[in-house]
Amino acid sequence: MKSPLIQTISLTPPSLQDNTADADRILNALKARLNTDALDIDFDLLKKLPHILRKSNYNARCILLKDRCQRVLVEVTDASDTRVIAGLAIDLGTTRVVLHLLELETGRTINESAFDNPQESIGPDILARIHFADQTGGLKKLNDLIIKALNAAIFNLCRDHQLEPQNIYALSVAGNTTMTHLFLGLDPHWIIREPYIPVVNSPGILRAQTLGLEVHPRARVLIFPNIGSYFGGDLIAGILFSKISQNDETAILVDVGTNAEVVLGNKNWLIACAGAAGPALEGGVTRMGMTAGPGVIDKIEIDPDSLEFSIHTIEDLPPKGICGSGVIDLAAQLFISGMLDIRGKFVPAACGNRLKEIDGILNLVVVPADQAATKADLTISQTDVDSLIRSKAAMYTILETITASVGLDLNDLTTFYVSGTFGSFINPGSAISIGMLPDLPLERYKPLGNSCIAGAALALTSDKYLDQIDDIRNRITYLELNVNQEFMNRFSAAKFLPHTDPTRFPSVKPWRKKCCKSIF
Amino acid sequence: MKSPLIQTISLTPPSLQDNTADADRILNALKARLNTDALDIDFDLLKKLPHILRKSNYNARCILLKDRCQRVLVEVTDASDTRVIAGLAIDLGTTRVVLHLLELETGRTINESAFDNPQESIGPDILARIHFADQTGGLKKLNDLIIKALNAAIFNLCRDHQLEPQNIYALSVAGNTTMTHLFLGLDPHWIIREPYIPVVNSPGILRAQTLGLEVHPRARVLIFPNIGSYFGGDLIAGILFSKISQNDETAILVDVGTNAEVVLGNKNWLIACAGAAGPALEGGVTRMGMTAGPGVIDKIEIDPDSLEFSIHTIEDLPPKGICGSGVIDLAAQLFISGMLDIRGKFVPAACGNRLKEIDGILNLVVVPADQAATKADLTISQTDVDSLIRSKAAMYTILETITASVGLDLNDLTTFYVSGTFGSFINPGSAISIGMLPDLPLERYKPLGNSCIAGAALALTSDKYLDQIDDIRNRITYLELNVNQEFMNRFSAAKFLPHTDPTRFPSVKPWRKKCCKSIF
Repeated sequence: MKSPLIQTISLTPPSLQDNTADADRILNALKARLNTDALDIDFDLLKKLPHILRKSNYNARCILLKDRCQRVLVEVTDASDTRVIAGLAIDLGTTRVVLHLLELETGRTINESAFDNPQESIGPDILARIHFADQTGGLKKLNDLIIKALNAAIFNLCRDHQLEPQNIYALSVAGNTTMTHLFLGLDPHWIIREPYIPVVNSPGILRAQTLGLEVHPRARVLIFPNIGSYFGGDLIAGILFSKISQNDETAILVDVGTNAEVVLGNKNWLIACAGAAGPALEGGVTRMGMTAGPGVIDKIEIDPDSLEFSIHTIEDLPPKGICGSGVIDLAAQLFISGMLDIRGKFVPAACGNRLKEIDGILNLVVVPADQAATKADLTISQTDVDSLIRSKAAMYTILETITASVGLDLNDLTTFYVSGTFGSFINPGSAISIGMLPDLPLERYKPLGNSCIAGAALALTSDKYLDQIDDIRNRITYLELNVNQEFMNRFSAAKFLPHTDPTRFPSVKPWRKKCCKSIF
Repeated sequence: MKSPLIQTISLTPPSLQDNTADADRILNALKARLNTDALDIDFDLLKKLPHILRKSNYNARCILLKDRCQRVLVEVTDASDTRVIAGLAIDLGTTRVVLHLLELETGRTINESAFDNPQESIGPDILARIHFADQTGGLKKLNDLIIKALNAAIFNLCRDHQLEPQNIYALSVAGNTTMTHLFLGLDPHWIIREPYIPVVNSPGILRAQTLGLEVHPRARVLIFPNIGSYFGGDLIAGILFSKISQNDETAILVDVGTNAEVVLGNKNWLIACAGAAGPALEGGVTRMGMTAGPGVIDKIEIDPDSLEFSIHTIEDLPPKGICGSGVIDLAAQLFISGMLDIRGKFVPAACGNRLKEIDGILNLVVVPADQAATKADLTISQTDVDSLIRSKAAMYTILETITASVGLDLNDLTTFYVSGTFGSFINPGSAISIGMLPDLPLERYKPLGNSCIAGAALALTSDKYLDQIDDIRNRITYLELNVNQEFMNRFSAAKFLPHTDPTRFPSVKPWRKKCCKSIF
């Protein structure tokens, strides 16, 4: 598939009978080809246009990007030019920034990279950074940190593939509302203060140069719009990639992170909500919790008869910690094997000598010191499990509330997308076992991976996606969860394994009767 | 009349029930007020918007300018702000640059100034400058010269009225095609080379900052479009000001300078042509010719009986030279008094001792040395008169040709606008006497003054004029004169005083029979 952004065109050379200006000549030909009047030329390109046209003998390769309200011609080269014309998609995460370099003409990914958001040196979360931005020079410092880090990453991405940053003509940036403000150098002060007002929802398409990005000086940057202070462009990018806003079928998309962000809908309507799911789901809950990496436990099985633990680590290295999907697996297996009861409390009779009291709190040894890379017990405490249960209850309640708000039942959902750098690795079976996700047939669950970066990359390949982005933003209804009493009732009911109403989870069959009969 | 470019608006402050972003809040209110969707906000303005809105308690004064395809909000201040919001119109002449500073809200002129185009140090005419631009660094030097001179002039214009250049938010620039290219830093190389191609005809609206103009950094600059290499934005500005493109009545507009540029038309059609009229009409023909100024002869009468000269100088100072309108007066009076014959040759019997031979050429003493500021005879030579006659013949032929091309007779013209810094000062009676302008009733002649600067200023007062500019540009038909044999025949017939066909000039009655009867 050739992208419409790049056009090769042969012009009739000027004559006394046809002496229109160079700019008109090329724009008229492109307008006819593309059947549009909304086409302009970048002013700076005019400076070299006469030379290129004559040197190329009026056979030109053109790069056309979408500007705010029209297409704009940003580059003209000789038609025989085979230089790669690159695009760059940016997932601007609070913690991690991901870049995809792609070939604009085909959409093919050339290279990828990621780095920790350097604003973490100011503060780990949005709140800390917004407070820092209130200080003199604070906003500029936060802005400089991210722009400089992006420029360094762009330089490296290109160098690895013998490209120049000048080859990059189109960029897209998707981040939450605060990250987007800091990236643009806009004051985030009011985002966290009642009534929670961003400076702008739709920054639109800007010149990369204005933002300090060291790419082609005529490059344009699409900024994914946000819906409000708590629903950012990263989610719009995810919705774009999932295509739920384009389909007849009603589907649900869940982005699992510190917040659980949920969108439900189809081509006729879209409803969204976001709620704090807590750090438990990201593996940040336990002392041994960490992001996925070599030696990190990502899967656990517990034999229901012998209660032996089978532990899988990334790259099969000695275990040094556990990631979010591993924690969910662990909790599910502990519950199914009878080592956790329906309240999420350790069952001493089943846990046996794995249970230890540390500082007055019960801890379960997942990996004994002699098998751990750290040479210390890897444990999960009762407090950790309690926290995980609040998080999974929040997630389930959010799903239940948004679905009920449109008169649907969770069982009606035929496609359930799970995205997020961590979310995509969740074992849906385990998430169902602890009552975090509804008890749907497993084939309905579809991991999307990092849907934010995928959506950002998609947006670069054709300007039809710009209309879809606007459409998503304009159609979405945001459901405010925090002011909902029914939510609190549902939340209380969901704070059990898998739920106070086990008929909702017919597939979850704990083995507790068999192995823990002495207790019941 | 209040300009729609400036709007004072009261916004509902945000609340939890109405938490749209600051940018959306103000844009939505303005869109409703102006009944348009094509409204955007300048990105840089976003950086201060949250602060202004809260500080002004949501009562804001807004400046809205037209961008390429929409209006754009470029400034928001407190509604109580009474600071002058200024516009600057620029007539970018090859020889002289004229500036009008005006109040955008009312269109009232605040201040005016003019300076000689500093590119004259490179070369007096377009040709010399285009050749210079071909040298390494040449274009940049020409561009720097005009931009620096404009910045200095802007600084002085503002200082005289206790304004800052930052008060200027909107500019308009009208010049011929080459001057416009040099102002924009675009290569004029092909303008003078067959088939005569400008880089761009419609540069549109640009940011002042991009062009190096030291005004408000978010100011926009309207560049008047050109029709081709030999029909520039200065003429479009003149047509805009004359309103001939808006009226039912067919009118003609003549801009008299080194070139004679003529536009004929009404609200249904417009036809234009330009031809070299020669420097004679600008007073550059004689050794004593100069641009108007103190001590310069601008009017002459010759008593038909006594043949005494009555000379008027600007500011009534001793005469030091003669300007273009003075030369036309002089030629007309010499002809009517019988001192020139119908071929434009001096009549010795009538000229008497005013005639002197210098270097073998007859010269007529207009002011003897003892009465002249220069203490030397001010004279006009036979060569000067011959040159004037070619120029006036060219002008008349252009008028005749363009009128005939649409099936009209010169006598059909009910309104005849004359513009140009010099053209406006021509005495139509004198111009008729020498057969330069057609023999219409004098009340049909309307001097327009500098219609270029007036049109440029008008364009700043409302964006409705931008549509009119596009309309003029798109509707005009350009008549090529140089390739027309009929033109040459007409030109030969017009090289007499007033014409080979005296029935065309019934009002012109030379006194030659009375005073020079000895000759005939």
